[in-house]
Amino acid sequence: MLRQFTTSLMFQTRGRGLLEVTSGIAGWAAGTGVAEGLLTVFVRHTSASLLIQENADPDVRGDLDRFFARLVPDGDPLFRHRDEGPDDMPAHVRAALTAVQLSIPLSGSRLALGTWQGIYLWEHRTRPHRRELVLHLLGA
Amino acid sequence: MLRQFTTSLMFQTRGRGLLEVTSGIAGWAAGTGVAEGLLTVFVRHTSASLLIQENADPDVRGDLDRFFARLVPDGDPLFRHRDEGPDDMPAHVRAALTAVQLSIPLSGSRLALGTWQGIYLWEHRTRPHRRELVLHLLGA
Amino acid sequence: MLRQFTTSLMFQTRGRGLLEVTSGIAGWAAGTGVAEGLLTVFVRHTSASLLIQENADPDVRGDLDRFFARLVPDGDPLFRHRDEGPDDMPAHVRAALTAVQLSIPLSGSRLALGTWQGIYLWEHRTRPHRRELVLHLLGA
Repeated sequence: MLRQFTTSLMFQTRGRGLLEVTSGIAGWAAGTGVAEGLLTVFVRHTSASLLIQENADPDVRGDLDRFFARLVPDGDPLFRHRDEGPDDMPAHVRAALTAVQLSIPLSGSRLALGTWQGIYLWEHRTRPHRRELVLHLLGA
Repeated sequence: MLRQFTTSLMFQTRGRGLLEVTSGIAGWAAGTGVAEGLLTVFVRHTSASLLIQENADPDVRGDLDRFFARLVPDGDPLFRHRDEGPDDMPAHVRAALTAVQLSIPLSGSRLALGTWQGIYLWEHRTRPHRRELVLHLLGA
Repeated sequence: MLRQFTTSLMFQTRGRGLLEVTSGIAGWAAGTGVAEGLLTVFVRHTSASLLIQENADPDVRGDLDRFFARLVPDGDPLFRHRDEGPDDMPAHVRAALTAVQLSIPLSGSRLALGTWQGIYLWEHRTRPHRRELVLHLLGA
């Protein structure tokens, strides 16, 4: 019998960079008792995003953030939207280049993540923010 | 009792740039009577994409499009595929860098979009096109 | 009556570039007998990704890969993570810029792909790899 569950999880970021959120998400999914299904994570912001990436070497997260900082420079004169400072519009561009939503199959009561995959909330603003993720799980 | 609904919505773009499609999508979802579920939007083209971004300051949409035009220049000599002109291959690259599909949870009969989030169809070709979105909603 | 199905498909890549996987995915979906639903494809790796792109002119795939190779150069001194060689960190960045998951509606017993859309597994490492996709289908 298929059922569905929805919740909202809050995370406090420490400013620009990747924050691992795998255990919070996996823990909620496990609590529903669903063994097989589809989990969707959605970020309710336009200057943060979601990423599945390597959870082993922390240099990967540093490199990712440095690459994006070079690709989308803060204070770029191309940008007109600067209401909240030089990192405002770059944060929107970085979010557009990545993902606001991820759907992950659940099988054998576990998320079907690969061995080296973790789920990250990517804060694109330089200052810390409180970010909300909406989770939806459909399964049996 | 879980049910599903599918439809197809057509949108006429005005050439390159972001077209808001939130109300068309939210209106269809509301008409199904589903209060809690998962809505998926899929674009059936390879030179347009989907984006959730800020719906307040129109400069954000202009900046996004200007950034992508600089990142993926029309007529770049790197590209061999030019069947439909200098904006043909850049449109494919821009689509690859963004999203062709979005899934958004539905809760309390409303899409779980954040306060500043709108859903946009991003036309990457310079000329206007007719674009088709397929919508799928699963819920109760 | 809604039902769900999950499977795992293995693909052998030939090194960096796009490998079409549409028929393997569509074939599995057809075998379930589901006529209307939602198919999700998830890649269990952090240096390969999923892409829906033009399936007609092979130059499009070549151009896409050349563009990404220029955007994220192998051996870039910006990167600290080089455990597996000069293409290691660029593969992670290329994966972050594209997608690890795609959800495609199914209607009339067919994936709702546009005429020119194919599903590709994008290998970002220069050497061939064995890659696993997890598929989840929910429908009736």
